[in-house]
Amino acid sequence: MPISSELADRAPQDRPAQDLHTEYDHVRRLFEHYCSPLETEDYGLQAIPETSPAKWHLAHTTWFFETFLLKPFLPGYQPFHPRFEYLFNSYYNGVGEQFPRPQRGLLSRPTVKEVYAYRHAVDAAMHDLLARDLPDRATIAERTELGLQHEMQHQELFFTDLKYNLACNPLFPTYIEAPARDATTPSVELAWQSYSGGIRQIGTTPQDGFCFDNETPRHRVFLEPFELASRPVTNGDVLAFMRDGGYHQPALWLADGWTHIQGTGATQPLYWIRQDDAWFEFTLHGLQPLDPDGIACHLSGYEADAIARWFGARLPTEFEWECAAQAEPDGAREEAHFVERGHYHPGHAGDHTLFGSIWQWTSSAYGPYPGYQPAPGAIGEYNGKFMCNQLVLRGGSCVTDRRQVRSTYRNFFYPPDRWQFSGLRLARNGG
Amino acid sequence: MPISSELADRAPQDRPAQDLHTEYDHVRRLFEHYCSPLETEDYGLQAIPETSPAKWHLAHTTWFFETFLLKPFLPGYQPFHPRFEYLFNSYYNGVGEQFPRPQRGLLSRPTVKEVYAYRHAVDAAMHDLLARDLPDRATIAERTELGLQHEMQHQELFFTDLKYNLACNPLFPTYIEAPARDATTPSVELAWQSYSGGIRQIGTTPQDGFCFDNETPRHRVFLEPFELASRPVTNGDVLAFMRDGGYHQPALWLADGWTHIQGTGATQPLYWIRQDDAWFEFTLHGLQPLDPDGIACHLSGYEADAIARWFGARLPTEFEWECAAQAEPDGAREEAHFVERGHYHPGHAGDHTLFGSIWQWTSSAYGPYPGYQPAPGAIGEYNGKFMCNQLVLRGGSCVTDRRQVRSTYRNFFYPPDRWQFSGLRLARNGG
Amino acid sequence: MPISSELADRAPQDRPAQDLHTEYDHVRRLFEHYCSPLETEDYGLQAIPETSPAKWHLAHTTWFFETFLLKPFLPGYQPFHPRFEYLFNSYYNGVGEQFPRPQRGLLSRPTVKEVYAYRHAVDAAMHDLLARDLPDRATIAERTELGLQHEMQHQELFFTDLKYNLACNPLFPTYIEAPARDATTPSVELAWQSYSGGIRQIGTTPQDGFCFDNETPRHRVFLEPFELASRPVTNGDVLAFMRDGGYHQPALWLADGWTHIQGTGATQPLYWIRQDDAWFEFTLHGLQPLDPDGIACHLSGYEADAIARWFGARLPTEFEWECAAQAEPDGAREEAHFVERGHYHPGHAGDHTLFGSIWQWTSSAYGPYPGYQPAPGAIGEYNGKFMCNQLVLRGGSCVTDRRQVRSTYRNFFYPPDRWQFSGLRLARNGG
Amino acid sequence: MPISSELADRAPQDRPAQDLHTEYDHVRRLFEHYCSPLETEDYGLQAIPETSPAKWHLAHTTWFFETFLLKPFLPGYQPFHPRFEYLFNSYYNGVGEQFPRPQRGLLSRPTVKEVYAYRHAVDAAMHDLLARDLPDRATIAERTELGLQHEMQHQELFFTDLKYNLACNPLFPTYIEAPARDATTPSVELAWQSYSGGIRQIGTTPQDGFCFDNETPRHRVFLEPFELASRPVTNGDVLAFMRDGGYHQPALWLADGWTHIQGTGATQPLYWIRQDDAWFEFTLHGLQPLDPDGIACHLSGYEADAIARWFGARLPTEFEWECAAQAEPDGAREEAHFVERGHYHPGHAGDHTLFGSIWQWTSSAYGPYPGYQPAPGAIGEYNGKFMCNQLVLRGGSCVTDRRQVRSTYRNFFYPPDRWQFSGLRLARNGG
Repeated sequence: MPISSELADRAPQDRPAQDLHTEYDHVRRLFEHYCSPLETEDYGLQAIPETSPAKWHLAHTTWFFETFLLKPFLPGYQPFHPRFEYLFNSYYNGVGEQFPRPQRGLLSRPTVKEVYAYRHAVDAAMHDLLARDLPDRATIAERTELGLQHEMQHQELFFTDLKYNLACNPLFPTYIEAPARDATTPSVELAWQSYSGGIRQIGTTPQDGFCFDNETPRHRVFLEPFELASRPVTNGDVLAFMRDGGYHQPALWLADGWTHIQGTGATQPLYWIRQDDAWFEFTLHGLQPLDPDGIACHLSGYEADAIARWFGARLPTEFEWECAAQAEPDGAREEAHFVERGHYHPGHAGDHTLFGSIWQWTSSAYGPYPGYQPAPGAIGEYNGKFMCNQLVLRGGSCVTDRRQVRSTYRNFFYPPDRWQFSGLRLARNGG
Repeated sequence: MPISSELADRAPQDRPAQDLHTEYDHVRRLFEHYCSPLETEDYGLQAIPETSPAKWHLAHTTWFFETFLLKPFLPGYQPFHPRFEYLFNSYYNGVGEQFPRPQRGLLSRPTVKEVYAYRHAVDAAMHDLLARDLPDRATIAERTELGLQHEMQHQELFFTDLKYNLACNPLFPTYIEAPARDATTPSVELAWQSYSGGIRQIGTTPQDGFCFDNETPRHRVFLEPFELASRPVTNGDVLAFMRDGGYHQPALWLADGWTHIQGTGATQPLYWIRQDDAWFEFTLHGLQPLDPDGIACHLSGYEADAIARWFGARLPTEFEWECAAQAEPDGAREEAHFVERGHYHPGHAGDHTLFGSIWQWTSSAYGPYPGYQPAPGAIGEYNGKFMCNQLVLRGGSCVTDRRQVRSTYRNFFYPPDRWQFSGLRLARNGG
Repeated sequence: MPISSELADRAPQDRPAQDLHTEYDHVRRLFEHYCSPLETEDYGLQAIPETSPAKWHLAHTTWFFETFLLKPFLPGYQPFHPRFEYLFNSYYNGVGEQFPRPQRGLLSRPTVKEVYAYRHAVDAAMHDLLARDLPDRATIAERTELGLQHEMQHQELFFTDLKYNLACNPLFPTYIEAPARDATTPSVELAWQSYSGGIRQIGTTPQDGFCFDNETPRHRVFLEPFELASRPVTNGDVLAFMRDGGYHQPALWLADGWTHIQGTGATQPLYWIRQDDAWFEFTLHGLQPLDPDGIACHLSGYEADAIARWFGARLPTEFEWECAAQAEPDGAREEAHFVERGHYHPGHAGDHTLFGSIWQWTSSAYGPYPGYQPAPGAIGEYNGKFMCNQLVLRGGSCVTDRRQVRSTYRNFFYPPDRWQFSGLRLARNGG
Repeated sequence: MPISSELADRAPQDRPAQDLHTEYDHVRRLFEHYCSPLETEDYGLQAIPETSPAKWHLAHTTWFFETFLLKPFLPGYQPFHPRFEYLFNSYYNGVGEQFPRPQRGLLSRPTVKEVYAYRHAVDAAMHDLLARDLPDRATIAERTELGLQHEMQHQELFFTDLKYNLACNPLFPTYIEAPARDATTPSVELAWQSYSGGIRQIGTTPQDGFCFDNETPRHRVFLEPFELASRPVTNGDVLAFMRDGGYHQPALWLADGWTHIQGTGATQPLYWIRQDDAWFEFTLHGLQPLDPDGIACHLSGYEADAIARWFGARLPTEFEWECAAQAEPDGAREEAHFVERGHYHPGHAGDHTLFGSIWQWTSSAYGPYPGYQPAPGAIGEYNGKFMCNQLVLRGGSCVTDRRQVRSTYRNFFYPPDRWQFSGLRLARNGG
């Protein structure tokens, strides 16, 4: 699966049209490739409102192109199906009402086959659109790029949602067998890396390549000196936290976090299973013995905060993380553990990069950068309206497409969320 | 689909073994036949905990034979899969823990194909068992008959659950096209049929043919004279109730019923849909214009009670209903609208029989008859433990197997339940 | 507190007017007497929607006289306060909307003092009404009697609700000190009393003295022979049930009961508290050591059913209970443990009567007797609309007014309810 | 009620002991003064978990002195009551378990009288403690100051909670009559005040006078130029928002805010009531006609954000607000509308100060300042553990004690919260 990485670094409007065709095909086919190990029955699962069925993701990403590109820009385009605008709208109130999210798993029709037909019909129309010399050519290119980035985000969600949905089955279904194991990196002692304070540039600008609007505008922040851990927190670290009664000491937890785990009764990370006096982890490669040197994942923001506190440390702010990431040597990101590796589980803690394996919780509430302005119209609902009650995560995970990740990329989830590949890297005050 | 009806009237232990083989095959194949119009995706739907997936019904009925016949009686029998005992146990605590009912729709594995393989493996073993001359032959025959009755009950639930699950889809999927319409019976004025009071025999005994334990023992009750309506309540009757503000007058409702509809906001029967100033009904044959002469169905016990009250009447007791049914001419039941007709929707009110089309709510709480004794062991959980909080319904519906229905047969649901084909026949005091 | 018991046995319309004045005063003063140990703060407590504040009971019973007697019958009567019709209506939709039940505890105003003023103003007007020679004299007398019976019912609820509300306080407040202990009756072995079957008369008629409409009409039922235990189930019996794992064996429970205790986690009767390896019971006389010979109370219908099953017995039907009660020797009821004893807790199992100490769960669903007709208008909502989902209890408890109890009196609660003084007496098939 | 304001400006450890005695008495008596209009019944109300009973506030503030001063520092001190440590602990896990917050309204005992006795006993012991020359004198002074600030915070909550609790009563009880109206300030056009950007000092240090730990450490932030509105948003502004369909346009709302108002059905601010075609507002002075020039209050963070968006503006960050407040002329705060005015409702928009009348929602998530360190032990739970999911509000309201308010003071509530006197001041990007 060769990935046209060089394409991603050019702004879409500057590319030859042919590149966009190629990139479009590549990303779209990737999703079908990811779905190939599924049984038809797997496509429809939705265990909780947050974890949409694979089939819905396949249709919704198609809906995005149909809604924001084909309908407004392709002359004479007829919608594939009159009700799909409603069925596969996620949350764009500007487009219209939405089929209720918690019920996506109840849509046995359209069938998987019909959804693929929908995809292919839209793909054909998209190629038609991209081939035309229309006055809105620049907007079309830009939105196509956005649509592909959107598709890649949903490919990531495909993996995390599928994992959650399969995990409800006591047969522990395997999505795909694990690839041959990488040579094990030796386990790494936790060391601290120092960073100086002062005024720093945060965020980016569309002129420098694709970005989401929430990464803009580039602006200045003042930082105090700080330190970051040399590696993420591992499963072994979490086991030590558990053995020390970490899940039972309120002093380690944010008040809301403590209330939350009292309600859920959580005493271990999501997907950890105790069997015959040993710990196992449910993974996309089936039930596996827990590796103490593996990078811990599926932690909530509350768990991440509590674990950091137990270490006498704290979560980094998103600005600290971004500054540190700016300082990474070129090429670090290239070698990071992203979805292209085909190992849909975090690696060992020995990988020397801030990127990959897990999304890292920060202590920063997800909010607008100074001067932030969402796009007008429904497409402006993409990011801006979620800027409340969530925390920023950084770095990209083992199921993130490498082309998506930038040092400025801001992911965001609610503090109790655990179904992403989310973990943490410790921080502390420096100076 | 020829149905060996004559078999049903003999007690199982009195039949030649060959008959039981034939009957077994017949009932088991029927279920696969009913499933044949489904898409693979339809098999897994579960919209609410009560409406189990088709796949689950297919597996659970198989589990019943495996659990209560093959495991105890077939020498050397090895379970098909070690976890199926857990996955497909419905509510038999005596067998062991059960996979949580609300999550049955999350079991994408075993796949449909694997469930069919399970069925066929159990079928083969059942034939092996039935062919053997074992000391427990009588018990085996009796339990096989129970297993087949159980399977027929789940075939009925297959239809009602499927209907509910498909109805959540705004595309209104059609299970199967409606058969050519019967010649329309002219609409019928409501008349009253009188029945005298006195001591009556209620219930039955296994010596008289197959029955469920909740129909026993046969016993005496004292009845006052009463009258029953000559036909069930129709859609037109319900429309008149609605036009008179029936859903908005607390005086017509039981207190719990009023509270219930305040909570749900119900102002019409389940599956009724208003489109462009006309009423439609979602059916297993797709969305259909509402027929005012059609027999009203998908009414809760609360709605049935309120409608009866609006008529100045009441629901019959289950004893009144049973006495009236005893008085039906021979053959009435034979012509009633049951599943064999292949029209999975109630007929017109003109059918002159107490049986068929809809289950009729009675005012009788579901309880044990005097001297009732459930069977020992897990199989005793079949009926007895549900004798609280439910009402008895009588008569059998358009998706009930004709061989199941007897004048003594007691179905039972909670007063708020609406997803069965449930309606009512008016009663009033006589004498 | 001398109680004019002889009055209760005459139908109200046959009494001299002066008697009704006296009875009115007596019952109304009784409520204030019961409230006298309360602190002002206690009057407003409402821990769950079911347990209304004492203040609300005081006002609602007054509202009953104002609404159903003064407003319709006393010429020129002006309501005490324009909003009290709304605030103190319990559930009479025919009168109008009701202040939401779960929020009764939020009404700090009117104050206790103002509610007493309301009571006294209505009392004065009632005396005025009763003294007049009005054409509706018979109806007025009848409704006054109903109002007093209603008031006595709420006096009982005052005790049960207060107990529940106080029990939420870890200081275990004492309503009143326990009276000097009765000479202890020796503990009694459980024996069985036989009753023959046949056609029996059930219910009563207003011509025979005051009754609620749900006790009418008198009618015939056919009973099989049965047996009743000679004494109620004791705390010691319940302890034995618990020690045998009764709360952990699903086979002993109705399905809904098992689900219910899984949800609540109940493993003992309400108000039982384990402290320092001993069992205590919260009572209206404070926290008391559990008496094994005491009659068990605060059991739900589910618990009562499970305990009966564990004994290899069952609950009686309400008809069995009523037949047995008809056979009680005269005077038994006179000596039974009702509220007049001033000991607001059940007695020992040695009391030889079916009446008193506890309400006894029956297996009978609360429903209408054949030919039952509620009164027209709002007052008809008193009993009839609750005839669904509840079970009948019989016998009267230690906080029931003796004048209320008859062998035909039907109390009714939902199977999960435990805050009444409810227990059980075992039954089994006879013959 | 003369208030020793000059005291508040000196660090506690620098004051003569006598001053602290005086200040202690003053603040403690103030609470009893605020309670004096209450009926006994009012003291116990708790409509939702968030709005604690007045009695609980009286006891909890006393518990604070007992727990953090008398128990650790006063030799030989015996707790007033053994269970009060449990009953009146709010959320200090380091002290021990807490009586469940939602049930505080169920504690009819201790009575109001007993709680006052508790207060007075602790007051006497506190005077004893303050009079002694103990080695921990400095810590005692510091904690006493914290205890008094804590008490003032709960006095504010007393007002907001009482308002909410009384508002559930359809009689609209008046806490106290409104004082004679201030001469009406003329209504004010909204103008914009500009502020330059750059590096700014935020927060404070205990050396500069009393502060809460969440205001420390003083640190630098980089700000872009911005503008603030010259006055808060008024009721008239909110009416215009409503008339323009503001509550029905999803594009104006944060996603979580939109979901929230869909759930609650809110279409107006809390306490606004429509009667006979006019708007009224429930206030602590009873139901009052809505004043269009009055400052809008009881807005949630979601409403504040939506209203700002509707104006084409936004909420300020807490840093912007603090910078603007630093620029206020001396004395502005002195004249602001705080609790000392005795008018427990916001004033007109004409008051020219950032302080008083309402807490102003900012867009800033409540989090730790760089280098923030909570105090060790249970007292460190005061602020730090709440730094998640909440937004910062600034400025102080009409029920805030003037001595509490500083430009650095950070209040914090959840975005859906509306029961505080919370409103907004518009901001926009500058320069």
